[in-house]
Amino acid sequence: MPQPSAKVSLTGIKPTGEPHLGNLIGAIRPALRLAEEYDSVYFIADYHALTTVRDPRLLRHYTRSVAATWVAAGLDPARTTFYVQSDVPEIFELNWALSCLTGKGLMNRAHAYKAARDRNVEAGEEPDAGVNMGLFNYPILMAVDILIMESDVVPVGKDQVQHVEYAADIAGSFNHVYGSSYSFKIPQAIIPDVGTGHTLPGLDGRKMSKSYDNTIQLFLPENKLKKLVRRIPTDSTPVEEPKDPDSSAVFQILDQFAPSGSADIVAETRKRLEAGGMGWGELKNVLFEVLNTELTPLRERYDELMKPGSDLDTYLAQGAEKARDRASGVLGSVREAIGIGR
Amino acid sequence: MPQPSAKVSLTGIKPTGEPHLGNLIGAIRPALRLAEEYDSVYFIADYHALTTVRDPRLLRHYTRSVAATWVAAGLDPARTTFYVQSDVPEIFELNWALSCLTGKGLMNRAHAYKAARDRNVEAGEEPDAGVNMGLFNYPILMAVDILIMESDVVPVGKDQVQHVEYAADIAGSFNHVYGSSYSFKIPQAIIPDVGTGHTLPGLDGRKMSKSYDNTIQLFLPENKLKKLVRRIPTDSTPVEEPKDPDSSAVFQILDQFAPSGSADIVAETRKRLEAGGMGWGELKNVLFEVLNTELTPLRERYDELMKPGSDLDTYLAQGAEKARDRASGVLGSVREAIGIGR
Repeated sequence: MPQPSAKVSLTGIKPTGEPHLGNLIGAIRPALRLAEEYDSVYFIADYHALTTVRDPRLLRHYTRSVAATWVAAGLDPARTTFYVQSDVPEIFELNWALSCLTGKGLMNRAHAYKAARDRNVEAGEEPDAGVNMGLFNYPILMAVDILIMESDVVPVGKDQVQHVEYAADIAGSFNHVYGSSYSFKIPQAIIPDVGTGHTLPGLDGRKMSKSYDNTIQLFLPENKLKKLVRRIPTDSTPVEEPKDPDSSAVFQILDQFAPSGSADIVAETRKRLEAGGMGWGELKNVLFEVLNTELTPLRERYDELMKPGSDLDTYLAQGAEKARDRASGVLGSVREAIGIGR
Repeated sequence: MPQPSAKVSLTGIKPTGEPHLGNLIGAIRPALRLAEEYDSVYFIADYHALTTVRDPRLLRHYTRSVAATWVAAGLDPARTTFYVQSDVPEIFELNWALSCLTGKGLMNRAHAYKAARDRNVEAGEEPDAGVNMGLFNYPILMAVDILIMESDVVPVGKDQVQHVEYAADIAGSFNHVYGSSYSFKIPQAIIPDVGTGHTLPGLDGRKMSKSYDNTIQLFLPENKLKKLVRRIPTDSTPVEEPKDPDSSAVFQILDQFAPSGSADIVAETRKRLEAGGMGWGELKNVLFEVLNTELTPLRERYDELMKPGSDLDTYLAQGAEKARDRASGVLGSVREAIGIGR
């Protein structure tokens, strides 16, 4: 367990879809490993998801589902600060305060906004067509998420590094004006090691991603999981011939997913493929068995947590309290510094 | 006193300077007259002022000073909902939610932002130089101020009509997507009758305005008030000659300021000026006496209210409670509609 003096690490999770194998391997596991060394803060960014999710039932479902997934995967709510963003109203007040300290020029240059503009221009549309102010303001809210928890580090993918830099910029602007009264901690991005260095392939061999619709959802019933594994493409190399494990999507998934306890299975399977005599069908059976053995207890825990009034509600209520304790301290100092409050 | 079923009228007051005679005549009095017919809501928009006021002591002072001024001028906290914006955290959460429903194009076309851009371009600067995101987002926060109080009407100056139209637009966007679950009331701008139809002249004869630094502050000590009145420009018409009251700044101030009980004085003064025999010095004495008689009790009440722990603190605390009652009802319905909350 991390010391109380440990550095703060913050992870935000946007609930915009059903959790899949890629999330587990690329985000959840690395974040949980990091939690060992840090005072870890995790939050479900439901108000970020609102920039794109317009279906209230879906948004509520994803929020709960993502929270349940992280707990099922091993997040310990007692050792971390784990909450839903919308349970911390202090975030939205600080969001306005920091808006007033943020130059519009900075937002004009934000990656996500620029990408949306470029797509519009390419399509012959108005540059800002379909761009809502949630998308445009996104980097400020993200800065607030980071700063209000006094985060030291933010583990992110490469495409998210700019958001942490923006948080540091905005904190710097605030500190420049009001630093004699209160200074934000300047956060740093870290890019966690996700293990193999390979991209996890999806059901069509391309990178597993919600946007390609090629994912293996984490909590499928056994028979559906088996069907999906059968769909992963293979070539037509006959059973008896030697095969290159590293160019097989099936083996890649096995290799990246297999928990440390299954290293033997992975090594043995590699040997058998290289030697020839192991067919794709058999490899798929091995992958299914490993997935199913590992995911079954997670699925059971997940199903339990998803029930109304489960432990999850207690965890999130307690997490909200911890988060508000942190947030209200920071917001109070900011209000004092900027001259808000009677 | 208005009926509970009366329509809601909302007035926002931005605390960015010391209250002056122009505020009393052009804003405070008309708003208080309107209060008679409406369920009136008044708030001090301290977080709007943050887009420009960077001195915390000044912001805190202006906030208190403006609140004290309105009460001294006759606002009845028991019959209205009277609060400081930053006391209502629900506003800032709704601000984010509505950002996600607001097209960036709408903000690009907002008057205040466009004016800032034009000034930059004229000065050969980057268009967004010095523009902060508080300024750019201003119309959304203003829409929230209006919508979260379920306002029917918003009395504004002509230059503020767009803000109310934007609030109606944003409400319309929300209602279009989520209207089956919750619909915002669509607000309307009304331009209150400020009386004479003349512009109130300042100390230099131009329109009285903070930005011209030509104002008569409301709560000056008697001797300073006398000095300021002496500074109002007059021409060199000799005492005995007839004078045109309507081209005299001194008479204009007297005419617009004089409370209904002093109609006699105004009519008599007009007659005496037109007849000849009344000099500018005497006119200034009349103006000073009327101002001083009317403002002395207001100044005394103001000074009392400005003391720490005065009635003002009680009023604002009670007002915050009333405002949060209204706001949390609306925010709760919005959260339910958009799918936020566990």
